[in-house]
Amino acid sequence: MKSLAALVFPGFQTLDFFGPIEILGDPANGFAISTVAKATEPVVSRHGQRISVDRVLADGTAYDLLFLPGGDSALEAAKDPELMDWIRQTAENAQLVMAVCTGSVLLGMTGVLDGRKATTNKVDFTATVPLAPNVDWVKEARWVEDGKFFTSSGVSAGMDMALGAVRHLFGAAQAEETAQGIEYLWNSDPSNDPFAQLEGLI
Amino acid sequence: MKSLAALVFPGFQTLDFFGPIEILGDPANGFAISTVAKATEPVVSRHGQRISVDRVLADGTAYDLLFLPGGDSALEAAKDPELMDWIRQTAENAQLVMAVCTGSVLLGMTGVLDGRKATTNKVDFTATVPLAPNVDWVKEARWVEDGKFFTSSGVSAGMDMALGAVRHLFGAAQAEETAQGIEYLWNSDPSNDPFAQLEGLI
Repeated sequence: MKSLAALVFPGFQTLDFFGPIEILGDPANGFAISTVAKATEPVVSRHGQRISVDRVLADGTAYDLLFLPGGDSALEAAKDPELMDWIRQTAENAQLVMAVCTGSVLLGMTGVLDGRKATTNKVDFTATVPLAPNVDWVKEARWVEDGKFFTSSGVSAGMDMALGAVRHLFGAAQAEETAQGIEYLWNSDPSNDPFAQLEGLI
Repeated sequence: MKSLAALVFPGFQTLDFFGPIEILGDPANGFAISTVAKATEPVVSRHGQRISVDRVLADGTAYDLLFLPGGDSALEAAKDPELMDWIRQTAENAQLVMAVCTGSVLLGMTGVLDGRKATTNKVDFTATVPLAPNVDWVKEARWVEDGKFFTSSGVSAGMDMALGAVRHLFGAAQAEETAQGIEYLWNSDPSNDPFAQLEGLI
């Protein structure tokens, strides 16, 4: 069973995290998911829900996959050198890395996306992408796949990306079955991003 | 500020709960959300995440709105008379009641939906709706609004319903703004339910 580290930090965006968890956590996909944080206390989401922590950054666990949510507070989280070192090292060692919304900027700020294509949310695109200036940021994309790195647009786009990762790993039939099981109308085309235009980026 | 009780029980479906929470918890919608459970210990979701509890059933708190997620385990939860009494009383006193997926069946089993139209998930529709035989179950609906009761189809449909509830309470512009803020492609027509056909109900 592959291990997946799902990072949380104070104020993480609720759906950024739990949308992909619903998909990646489907037993058919067979990941052992750990909620990982800096400290052992429950972590409060953007909307006030408190989530228990399975493992801490400092415990030295290695993971096969890494998943990062976003949220406005991701930029505050980025000020913590221990967190940034953990993200960098875990991403470098992982077989697949996924980041949603501002989580893509957080990932980019560690340097691991330098020279790669990536996307982030469209609402704050212009304000946040300069924080990771060596990434080739894509303005119009629901999500972007570049090698082992999967990055998505804002909040709900994380679900479309997670299904894209399932397709990449296990094939289209399994991704479609996962989507149908949760009665989800999957936007399965990573280039289909109406929010780039709605937010005036193109 | 209106108070909203968001029930959790062991094995609740992750996205059933956190999708609507992302939407209802948007500060623009102004709800004070409490996670409510039978006991004070963290409650484990279908995918293994542990959620802290803000209030317990027995503490006598009154709420303006009630929200129920589903999951296969909802039918196990339905065996608990304290829980069923709490749902019935809280639903009767609430201004608006929302239930997702099997949570609609759980709500129906308390009797409060008797004689009303409602829907639930399409995957288990045929097996579960006989558990609440006096409800007018709708086979083809993304969600159903009947008076103060909003019930949705499976898992991801809860987000479309939650936006429908925001539209009902605050108008279409606010619902559309909430959807755009999370870059969500809202299926805003409650009758648009491709899964009824996919699951062979129509």
